[in-house]
Amino acid sequence: MTSRQTCGRRTIAGRSATRPAALLLLLVCRTRTLKRSGFEQVFIPLNDDKPRKRVKRGQRRALIIEGARRIFAQQGLSASTRDIAAELGVTQALLYKYFESKDALIEAILAQEPDVVTLPARETLEDTSRSLEDRLTEVSTAILNGYDEERLRLSLFAGLAGIRAPFFFGPVQLRSELLEPIIAALRLDCGLEPLSSRPLCAAEFDLAMVLYGKLVCVAMRDLVYRIQTAQDRTKAMDQLARVWCTGARPEICAIHESWDAQEPVTREALHAKRERLARTA
Amino acid sequence: MTSRQTCGRRTIAGRSATRPAALLLLLVCRTRTLKRSGFEQVFIPLNDDKPRKRVKRGQRRALIIEGARRIFAQQGLSASTRDIAAELGVTQALLYKYFESKDALIEAILAQEPDVVTLPARETLEDTSRSLEDRLTEVSTAILNGYDEERLRLSLFAGLAGIRAPFFFGPVQLRSELLEPIIAALRLDCGLEPLSSRPLCAAEFDLAMVLYGKLVCVAMRDLVYRIQTAQDRTKAMDQLARVWCTGARPEICAIHESWDAQEPVTREALHAKRERLARTA
Repeated sequence: MTSRQTCGRRTIAGRSATRPAALLLLLVCRTRTLKRSGFEQVFIPLNDDKPRKRVKRGQRRALIIEGARRIFAQQGLSASTRDIAAELGVTQALLYKYFESKDALIEAILAQEPDVVTLPARETLEDTSRSLEDRLTEVSTAILNGYDEERLRLSLFAGLAGIRAPFFFGPVQLRSELLEPIIAALRLDCGLEPLSSRPLCAAEFDLAMVLYGKLVCVAMRDLVYRIQTAQDRTKAMDQLARVWCTGARPEICAIHESWDAQEPVTREALHAKRERLARTA
Repeated sequence: MTSRQTCGRRTIAGRSATRPAALLLLLVCRTRTLKRSGFEQVFIPLNDDKPRKRVKRGQRRALIIEGARRIFAQQGLSASTRDIAAELGVTQALLYKYFESKDALIEAILAQEPDVVTLPARETLEDTSRSLEDRLTEVSTAILNGYDEERLRLSLFAGLAGIRAPFFFGPVQLRSELLEPIIAALRLDCGLEPLSSRPLCAAEFDLAMVLYGKLVCVAMRDLVYRIQTAQDRTKAMDQLARVWCTGARPEICAIHESWDAQEPVTREALHAKRERLARTA
């Protein structure tokens, strides 16, 4: 909030523009939908008694990212820079001063998304003092709570716009930060060899993805489509972990009994995240 | 294809317009992106030796729906009617002759989506001569094959645009056409009471949704994000059905052992599909 408080009409709309001039600029931008836009949030009016401060370059960049993120999440990545500039109440020229293209703006937005799951997943899953079901329920709930509507919408729109690897999960390695810890915990639970001696195979990758895929689906139904689980969320998460564990235990034992027939994880599944990371690096 | 063959430049672009006049109309529409548009597909040039035929009103309406569906699926529902008219190479006025608003056009598109699952789900699931795993694999595969990219993208964009109940599943009752048949088959498999004496409860609804949610996720990853399952699709579907069945059997037995404590399916889950059907009826 402090970064916003130093941000006045004058400084955002143009370096030396007075208020009427800034308003004129807005008209030039053909701003159509100021009411439902981020206008109010970027233009925090300054208290007239206080001296006006210039917004620092870094702050202004952050404000543009924040506002554009909101607009992209609302309207999709097809929103034009003209519309974004208009809705943020800045000139398109100013926007291009900070981001050389719309793609650059999108990349900057995606690059600053937090990693939901660096929080508890690995540590929680390694805590063998609790049942596997309990640990998976906790991790699943943490992942679901890590989503917010804007983030999920943004990630869906990104996928639909062909930005290949989505960040449902945050820009961390889905495999190393979630799937492998889940399978490591399941193997230990079943008395099977650790990942250090037998690396993750394709069947295990998909097995862990069954659980994760369902989480994504619950989050989508809840935050995008506004359809809740039929039971309380807590009961549904308990059930999900329980059903998955009961099904996954004999499955992983069968996988390891026929280990020599198992395939390694394919390139596609492996490098999906890596590709996007490389793009936004 | 036959409906397209009778459709020439003249008849689509304006009743009595000659080719140059039609081109002028296009310019007026400020068509910017003809190359990547449905232009070529709506404007099948007539063989000049053959007499030109007028497109019938119904055919023209169908062509507009088909073209607009493609554009919405590509760009999202935020695509404007101006852009759609331009990309289809018709005037906006013509578009409004057939659809009084963009909403009406979208509703017409959604209303004509086929029901993926009216095909084999119920009959397949009732065939007790095969294992439950086999039947679920077949139904799951049929659902996945029922999706195409355009349909899935359209349904995601519809959800993101706030058209509440999506049609991942086709505009059929998800509950009556899939979830209840799945639970009926599972109950029979476990020797539990049929739905006729004990209607579906919330915990069973969510249990069936675990399976369906995962299917949606596989379809999304495949068709939107271009990420395949790590194993072959066939093996992944087998695994999904197997893991679900193994987990779901003890789960549903436990649900029925504590039947008096079970909740009915909540309004939200129940009426989601119904609401959208009412909207597009």
